[in-house]
This record gives sequence, structure tokens and C-alpha cells, in this order.
Amino acid sequence: MNDADLKKLTLASAARRIRRKEISAVELTAAVLQRIARLNDRTRAFITVTADRALARAHAADRELLNGATAGPLHGVPLSLKDLYDTKGVRTTAGSKVFADRIPNEDGFVVQKIQDAGAVVPGKNNLHEFAYGVTTVNPHYGTARNPWNPDYLCGGSSGGSGVAVALSMGFGSLGSYTGGSIRIPASLCGVVGLKPTYGRCSLRGVVPLSWSLDHPGPMGQTVEDVALMLGVMAGYDAADPFCQDKPVPSYLDALTGSVKGLRIGLPRSYFFDGLAPEVDAALNAALKTYERLGADIVDIDLKTAGLQRGVWSQIASPEAYAYHEEYLSKQGDRYGADVRGRLEIGRLLLSIDYVRAQRVRTVMKEECRKVFESVDVIVTPSLPVTPPRIDQTTVQRGSVTEPTGVALTRCTRHFNVTGLPAISLTCGFTRDGLPIGMQIAGRAFDEAVVLRAAHAYEQDAKWFERRPEM
Amino acid sequence: MNDADLKKLTLASAARRIRRKEISAVELTAAVLQRIARLNDRTRAFITVTADRALARAHAADRELLNGATAGPLHGVPLSLKDLYDTKGVRTTAGSKVFADRIPNEDGFVVQKIQDAGAVVPGKNNLHEFAYGVTTVNPHYGTARNPWNPDYLCGGSSGGSGVAVALSMGFGSLGSYTGGSIRIPASLCGVVGLKPTYGRCSLRGVVPLSWSLDHPGPMGQTVEDVALMLGVMAGYDAADPFCQDKPVPSYLDALTGSVKGLRIGLPRSYFFDGLAPEVDAALNAALKTYERLGADIVDIDLKTAGLQRGVWSQIASPEAYAYHEEYLSKQGDRYGADVRGRLEIGRLLLSIDYVRAQRVRTVMKEECRKVFESVDVIVTPSLPVTPPRIDQTTVQRGSVTEPTGVALTRCTRHFNVTGLPAISLTCGFTRDGLPIGMQIAGRAFDEAVVLRAAHAYEQDAKWFERRPEM
Repeated sequence: MNDADLKKLTLASAARRIRRKEISAVELTAAVLQRIARLNDRTRAFITVTADRALARAHAADRELLNGATAGPLHGVPLSLKDLYDTKGVRTTAGSKVFADRIPNEDGFVVQKIQDAGAVVPGKNNLHEFAYGVTTVNPHYGTARNPWNPDYLCGGSSGGSGVAVALSMGFGSLGSYTGGSIRIPASLCGVVGLKPTYGRCSLRGVVPLSWSLDHPGPMGQTVEDVALMLGVMAGYDAADPFCQDKPVPSYLDALTGSVKGLRIGLPRSYFFDGLAPEVDAALNAALKTYERLGADIVDIDLKTAGLQRGVWSQIASPEAYAYHEEYLSKQGDRYGADVRGRLEIGRLLLSIDYVRAQRVRTVMKEECRKVFESVDVIVTPSLPVTPPRIDQTTVQRGSVTEPTGVALTRCTRHFNVTGLPAISLTCGFTRDGLPIGMQIAGRAFDEAVVLRAAHAYEQDAKWFERRPEM
Repeated sequence: MNDADLKKLTLASAARRIRRKEISAVELTAAVLQRIARLNDRTRAFITVTADRALARAHAADRELLNGATAGPLHGVPLSLKDLYDTKGVRTTAGSKVFADRIPNEDGFVVQKIQDAGAVVPGKNNLHEFAYGVTTVNPHYGTARNPWNPDYLCGGSSGGSGVAVALSMGFGSLGSYTGGSIRIPASLCGVVGLKPTYGRCSLRGVVPLSWSLDHPGPMGQTVEDVALMLGVMAGYDAADPFCQDKPVPSYLDALTGSVKGLRIGLPRSYFFDGLAPEVDAALNAALKTYERLGADIVDIDLKTAGLQRGVWSQIASPEAYAYHEEYLSKQGDRYGADVRGRLEIGRLLLSIDYVRAQRVRTVMKEECRKVFESVDVIVTPSLPVTPPRIDQTTVQRGSVTEPTGVALTRCTRHFNVTGLPAISLTCGFTRDGLPIGMQIAGRAFDEAVVLRAAHAYEQDAKWFERRPEM
């Protein structure tokens, strides 16, 4: 299979063609591995490539189909993992030298689930160190590069996943978020990334950053791909104390193509403050599309939105420190200076800081719950700015100059703090050819309506037809 | 209705007789109010008596029945509330002078539910100040007295509720727990008290102590009474961020009388360490009863049990401080010295102390989950000691002398920390005629099996037939 053919496939179409035996899992996996071999030096999308294992699994998948086995929903399809998902017998670095030789004895719960569904894992994607790096340059495993222009950020912490998906080095990737680490790279790389509701997917066997804010989630080229992956990942795990026992609907069935009568809430203040003109224009055009498709746009107010930054930090800092405490004391010098500095903050806060933040968090959740009595989804930009360059430590947002990380997490973190499902998908491109993302959030455990809203827009706008040249 | 007749009734039998129009709600309420008037000076079970309101409601209940309305499960039955349940238009002191004039605008969620089910509220029960007092003497509203002997402790924080139920000053009471505040007074007063699973009942409109450890729960004379109340109290409240949307089974149907094949786990270490000989003997006799009834007794090990004390304090202290911060700064001198001192500790802890405690908590939960794969319930003493006298600041537990509060919470707190359902019911009396309690805990959201186990024992042992003389 040549590169052009490979790039035409999505996760869903590849899975269909394997099921129909039009292509083999081995053929597909070999083509993906070749692409990784060719592009990884330039893009640093992968920390570890598991070529032999992937090919062996692909062979097994082909054999199973020939023997008449029922194909799982991801049967034979290459799909990578952010390198903080535990993989049995394969090192899981979490992007850090501290874990450079860490080889888990067990697969993470969702890793097990996607493999049970037939997925082939070609490798482990690059990420910010422990998903907590501040500098955009990973000091340990190289800096992942934007697939549209290597001088630009691909985002973090699931940057490698975004790059891999955008460049067809696999048909999807499991990323993870604490503050926006799927939606931010999805927006910057021009792919689709979903944060499910907190508790929707098990976190067992995912290296934690801040357990009350961490979420595993799928990234893919299309909304259909992401819906397909979520259907496999979602579900109860009694051994994860935060995972909830809720029925999992068919997310593919939710993709009806219609948003007629859908009530879209627009939180103009905060989320739309000081937007880059190109982002503003792309969002406005997308909202016009929604109106044309029959949705109702309603102005809403999320008064607590501005509190996310303080709340997030006061919760994440001590939770992260608690996990790293022992490693810091024994191997502190192996951490990047940025991550070590950030972790040390967690040692200094008082418990009332944490507890106050948790209290504000419940107020933010309650405000969202009430807002969602009158709307079905909330639409915002994924990022208030256009993609920054890799060397840019600050960005201009309207009249404000702020650290790049602060601007990038501005719109996404609210939904980590509140635990609500949110997706990012492309809604346009800058004049320089870099993608612009739109965020759509929904009610707790109502990923279906988020996917439906995203899919209807995507099928109308068809931005996914535009692919990076590499 | 005379006192002897009143004392023969339980919540369930009173409700049945009202439904059958054999007695009227007014007659019953008047008799209860009379008893409160006669006994409250001596026992300090009530902070506020709402005689006029109660009689008006009882009249309305009688009229509704005469007009052919369907009776709710608690129709016309007097049932009191620990004075930290918000009651619309009736002051809710939380046992503190700080809230001496606090009159809520709304009923708490479960208060609304029991009233919708027809309950008549004769008044608000005494409690430790903000459910957090250390000294057994409430400096503001008088000290509630043990119904079996006024020189002895009735427990806290729901002490007034225990006394009211034991002495038929109402047929039940809604108490609340953070560390054992229902099971401890239930044990000391010789009544039945249930802590439901965390998230089973809404905490909206209950003055918080430590929101991640707080639980509302019913107290009654019999297991049937408690099952009846729980059926009314349980259920989802979207406005309580910690309340869970789970189906509520019929708890009355769970009372089959049979424990054949029930697997009872016995955590000998920690929970049975240094028991008072009379407690030990009562527990052993109860276990023999269970064996005779066909249950299997299995030795289990809860290795993390001893961690409860540190974990509990590190979580409760900052959560309590966060709620009281503003009141402390403005009215600090109105707090009892014991409560103020205890609250101030919460200001000093670091967030990693809190976060570490939450981490240990998940380990404790996970250990319980695994233990409950091989047993259906866990049986322990409710208290390791016999009831202490009111002036006793320390107790002897085996060879150890420890503060009374530490001994009293030793066995109960584990199930606040893990959030699992647990009941206390009488399993014997000391030579001095004071009650001894047995605790039965179960899986998350499996209150039904806890109630079934408790009920089968109760109906065989019939300790409820023994009532205090007052």
C-alpha cells in the first residue's frame, strides 16, 4: 500500500475494509510502520515503535479473520498510545527519563479493551514530561513538531498523538488530558480529540498527573473515528475508584447528521474575549453553518469560567506532587527543571487551598448543570489564538500578552475542572495554512450529543479533506 | 393515647395503624408532644420543639386520609430531625450559638422527601456543636442524656436523635454521620441506626461538617423502621454534586428473615482488639445466632483499618475549616472552645496531607471491594467498649487507655472513610443494663443485604422488646 492510499483511509474505513477482507491487517500495519520509520525523525511523534509486536498482532488478526472469527470493531487497525498508557512488556516512559526503563507487568484497562477489540499498536507517542512540562521542548525524547509546519507547536501533553493521527502514522491514538492535553493538540494538529466525562473511562494503568482532573480519551481524523474508539474505551472498571457504572450507548448510532432544533449555548464572555481575528472569523462561520443546519444559537453566561485557572492549579499541584513525592526524593535530578519546579509548588500549598478549590469546583459544576437545562451543547473556540511557534514563550491575546501555556489552556480547562465531555475539531485554517479548532461541550455522560453536533458540522464543512502534505 | 400504648408502637406499626384509620395522626402527635414536654428537660433530646406546626400537619394528614387521599409511607407519623437538617421557617442551629438565629428559606432535600411521604416533624434534635464537639457536654443547648441511665453518654453527634427514638419521643429521627455519629448513639441508646452508602441520599440542606465524609441516615427502633425511612430518603438529587443516580430497591422487600448461606466476614484484627469482655461476649453470642440461622462466618483481614484515624482527620479538618472559615473570622468567640480548637487545626495542614489521605482512602476502598468479593457483609462491634459515663474523658480498651472519642469512633469511621453502608443494632446489654451494639457493613449501594442481615438477627434475638423505663 502506498502513502497516498494510506492517507485516504480513516480508522472507520480501514476497519470496514479489513472486515470485508479488501485489505489485510499486515499490509496496513506494514504501511503505517514504514511511514513512522520515514517521518519520526522529523516529527518526534513516537518515543517507542513496537514494529515486531505490531506485525505479529496484525498477522494474528488476519489469521483470525480467515478462520472465521468475528472481527472486533477495531480489528487489525493500527492505533497508537500516548506513552503514559501502561503496556505489558513495553516500556512506558511518561515522557520522562525517570521512567526510561519502566516496563509494566500489565496493560492498562483501556489498552486491554482496545486490544480485545482487535487494535494493533504500532508504538507509543511522545508527550510532555509526565504530561506536565512547561517548555515546549521535551528535554528527554525530542520535541514533536506540528504536522502542518514544523516551526509551530503541535501542543501538549498529547502532542505526539496529534501528530501521529494527522500524518496517518496510525489511524487514531489514545491521548489523555488533565487541562486540555487532547483538545489542544487536536486543534493545533487539525484532528479530532474528545475528552469523555470524568468517570466514563477507566484510568487504571494510566500514569497519573492529577487524578481528579485526569481523563483518557480518543484522538482521530474524524468524529466517526473518535466515536468508534470511545465506544470501545468507555465502560465500568470496578478497580478504578472514580470510574462510574453507567450504560454505554452506541456512539456510532448518535451520528445522525442532523442538528435540527439542537440548542447551542454560546458563552460570549471569557471564552470569546480577545480572540485572534482568524479564530473569531472561523467560529462565526461555523456558527452560521449550524444555523443553516437548523440549530438554535442561544447566548449563555458561564460566570465562573474565569476561576478555572486558580482552581485547576490548586487541585493539580498537590495531586501531582503526591504521586511524584517518592520519585522526586530519589531521582529529582532526572526530572526536567520545568517539571521539577512545577511539582515543587504542590508541596507548599495548604490543604484549605486545595479544599477551597474543590468547593469552587462544585459551584462551577452546578452552574454548568443549570446552563445545560436550557442548552444541549456549548460551543467555544478550542484555543483563543492561532497556533504559536515552538519558540514562542508568550502570545498576544487581544490586548493582553500572556504565557503561551496560559493562552492555550484558557478555553479547555473549564471542562476538565467540571468533568464534562468536550470535543475539539477543525473549523478552519489560518492564512498560513494552520488549523483552527472549535470546542463543543455537553452534559455529563452525554458524549452522544457532543459527537452528533460535531459530526453534523464536520460532514457539512469537510475540513478533514484537507491533509498535511508530509 | 397513654405512654404505655405509645411505647408499644414502632414507626412501621404506627404508619399501618394510621393508614387503617385505627388511630389518628393528631392523637399520635399529641401523645408524642406530651412525652417530649415531660422528658425533654431531663434528657435534652430536642433543641427546638415545633408543637403547633406538628399538630397542624397532623390535622392535615388526617383530613387527607378522610378525603380518600393515598397515604404516603410515613403518613401522619411523628419523626424528628437532627438540628442540622434545614427546615423552612424553623431555626436550624447545628447545635451552635453561631446559628442560634438561622432560619432557612427552604427544607433540605430529604426533609422535603419525608414530608412528601407524610411525616410529621415534632422538633429538632440536640447534637454536638456543628457535629464536631469534643467534650460530651454541649455548652449551648444542654447535654443529652443516655435513656437507660442519665449518668452515661448517649453519644454524638446525633445523640439527641438516639435519645428521642429510644424514648418514643417520635418514631424515628434523621441523624447524620461524619465519623460514626449515627451508629455510635444508636449503639449507646439501644436503637437502630444506618449509614447509607455515600451518595445514596442527598446532602442538600444539611449543614456540612466534612462533605466527603458526611452522610445523612435514618435512626429507628427496629430494622424495619430504618428500612422504611431509607426507602423514602434515598434517591437522586441532581443539585447535590455527590449524590448518585442509582435505582432505589424496595428495602422492605429485602427483609426476608433469612440469612441462609449469607457469608459474614469477621475482621478479627483491629475491630476485635482489646474488646470489653461484655462486648466480646455479646458479639460472640450474636455470631452463634447467625450460625444457627444458617449464615457462614468467614475470617477476613482489613489490613488498612488502622489507618482510618489519620486519614479521617486529615480529610475532615480542612473540609470543616473551609466551611467555617468565614464564620470563625466574624464570630469566633461564639464557638465552643473545643470546636474552635478542632477547626483551627484544619488551617495548618498542607494540601499534600489532605491529598495523601485521599490516596490512602482509595486504597482502603479497594481493599474493601476485594474483601466483598468473598463475603456479603462484615460484622464488627459498633463500639469496642461498654457505654462510658458522661464525665469520662478516657476509657480503658484492653490494656490501652485512650480518649473516649477515640475509642468510640474506632470501629465506625472505617465505613465513613470508605463510604460503605453500615448499620448498628443492639446485640445485648451489660450487667448494668446498658446496650451493646453490633455493626454490619455491606457493599456500596447494597443497603438491602445489610438490612436483611440485621433484620434476621433482630427478629431472632428480639432485644428491641427491652425498652428504657422512662
